[in-house]
Amino acid sequence: MNTGQASGGHGGVVPPGISTVLITGTGLIGTSIGLALRARGVTVWLSDADPSAVRLAADMGAGVPHPGDRADVAVLAVPPDAVGPMLAAAQAEDRAHWYTDVASVKRLPVEAARAAGCDMAAYVPGHPLAGREKHGPAAARADLFLGRTWALCPGEAHQHAIDAMRELVGACGAVPVLTDPDTHDRWVALTSHAPHLVAAAMAARLESAPGQALDLAGQGLRDVTRIAAGEIELWTQILTANAAPVADVLAAVADDLAEAARQLADGAGPKDLLARGRAGVARIPGKHGDAAPEFAIVQVVIPDRPGELARLFNAAGAAGVNIEDIRIEHSPGLPVGVAELSARPAEAAGLSAALSAAGYACRH
Amino acid sequence: MNTGQASGGHGGVVPPGISTVLITGTGLIGTSIGLALRARGVTVWLSDADPSAVRLAADMGAGVPHPGDRADVAVLAVPPDAVGPMLAAAQAEDRAHWYTDVASVKRLPVEAARAAGCDMAAYVPGHPLAGREKHGPAAARADLFLGRTWALCPGEAHQHAIDAMRELVGACGAVPVLTDPDTHDRWVALTSHAPHLVAAAMAARLESAPGQALDLAGQGLRDVTRIAAGEIELWTQILTANAAPVADVLAAVADDLAEAARQLADGAGPKDLLARGRAGVARIPGKHGDAAPEFAIVQVVIPDRPGELARLFNAAGAAGVNIEDIRIEHSPGLPVGVAELSARPAEAAGLSAALSAAGYACRH
Repeated sequence: MNTGQASGGHGGVVPPGISTVLITGTGLIGTSIGLALRARGVTVWLSDADPSAVRLAADMGAGVPHPGDRADVAVLAVPPDAVGPMLAAAQAEDRAHWYTDVASVKRLPVEAARAAGCDMAAYVPGHPLAGREKHGPAAARADLFLGRTWALCPGEAHQHAIDAMRELVGACGAVPVLTDPDTHDRWVALTSHAPHLVAAAMAARLESAPGQALDLAGQGLRDVTRIAAGEIELWTQILTANAAPVADVLAAVADDLAEAARQLADGAGPKDLLARGRAGVARIPGKHGDAAPEFAIVQVVIPDRPGELARLFNAAGAAGVNIEDIRIEHSPGLPVGVAELSARPAEAAGLSAALSAAGYACRH
Repeated sequence: MNTGQASGGHGGVVPPGISTVLITGTGLIGTSIGLALRARGVTVWLSDADPSAVRLAADMGAGVPHPGDRADVAVLAVPPDAVGPMLAAAQAEDRAHWYTDVASVKRLPVEAARAAGCDMAAYVPGHPLAGREKHGPAAARADLFLGRTWALCPGEAHQHAIDAMRELVGACGAVPVLTDPDTHDRWVALTSHAPHLVAAAMAARLESAPGQALDLAGQGLRDVTRIAAGEIELWTQILTANAAPVADVLAAVADDLAEAARQLADGAGPKDLLARGRAGVARIPGKHGDAAPEFAIVQVVIPDRPGELARLFNAAGAAGVNIEDIRIEHSPGLPVGVAELSARPAEAAGLSAALSAAGYACRH
């Protein structure tokens, strides 16, 4: 691409802010972006291959059907495979000043766009790290992106395009993280795609296990395998579109596990892997982007009845203690659970005292 | 062992119930057993190589220092390596009618006991599936075992010994699961020990990752890697003592991951592994030993302030809806979080409506 030609084509035509956004693809992500932007007063135009999806999104307040006007920004909220051809078509029709997409992989759509001869100076590839479980416009909501990370891979994009996208991301309440497509794909391979298959590989061992063995399952096994319950078709698409970076991570994990198996079989403890794992997990950021603090855990026994968690949190709230996190361990065979409350170490004693005063059996 | 001789040695001398229990080793587990049994009126005698640990446990109400009398049951709450020699010594001194231990592996102590010539008819190897994070008597509590599984591996034990252990487990509020040592060790290799190393192997990939990559981390990565934060020394001991079964599981997981990496590199999706993983995770029991139901998820945005979770649960409790589980997703860069509430599908709409009426932005 000729960036000189491209930036020349857009110099001096940038509006001071985004006032009109065209959303192409009114599924969960597209409709949610529409709702978020409408809440900020942005004019949103909606289009989709399925007219009923546009009507539903419009009824929800995500915008109005596209009148055909040129928008400041066009958001292509379509599957990874569709981004390249759709961007080429949209640019041929001069739908917008600037363009972005929301695919969960970035190299594939960027290469397709370049191959299709798209104007790469007007295109800022994007990926909001949000959205799950449900699909379609009915599942959308204005705060889907609130506090989430939103990756942007500007590449050859004009600075004004990048500024416009930062504004759009900010209007959705998300936090932009700028990188390039290959780096993005390696990052999500590491933080999202490979963990999914690692969870699946551990969970696959349970398939033929005796039922009584599973009676010994605690919260640890539940946590390690939880995401393996995700949609198979969706994840097959994602993993296939990011095959090489995911394969690299998986091969390294497989090597480490095979080596740990050999060490154990040889009578050695896998101390090195445990130490590296502990160092790795300590690097995952905690709340608000801080390094994860070492929370103190307060364990509380709770009956399994409506209202019991409310009573618990009332007691904590009355003590002015913020519960940073909670996990509920299920109790096979008994109608009670054990809730593990995470609190800042300085507040754990106060929390424990407040809960004890409220009649709870608890310890920290 | 001669089971005829052993059962002959214990025939007809069984009390109608446990009235005296000797606990040797007043750490977290031993002291917690003492507290639980004291709450049921059982006489508990305490001993430990460290006299200060006995004093602390006694001060907490877990029992009284061992007067030297013979107990109905002796609980050896000591590390796996120590069980065999300690059982031999205790039986030589005729400390109790029946004996058990609480080590998290079972083949090692059973083989050591047999090699030391112990009376195996009087010994019911045990393993309560509880206890974490903290150690020592100060961390003990009477309800540590409430609703938890407690594995018993009676082997050649006298039926009356088994009955006594069932009574002890029940008095602690736990649910006995009977098996043999090798099966037990394979089960915990699958449900606890191998998952720990799988989590460590995934987390180890994060050790050298750029900080920005970790900004893309969501709840999935946090769940998969959480248990890798556990104590390295403790886990090295556990894994070494259950080396062969853990190695078998790890080798199989490594093979599956290596195969998935090859499939991806060859352009194929790892659909088979995803399907097997999904089938495996569906087999983990849910609350109260039921099969895990498919919960509906209601997402709610919550400010990060004391009292906000109390307000949330009040609204849910007012609607009479039981929240089955909750996960809080941390929000890098913003002072809000997204709570995911699990509810039975039939109750999710009511929960969502109640929370909306209380002013929450939520969706399901």
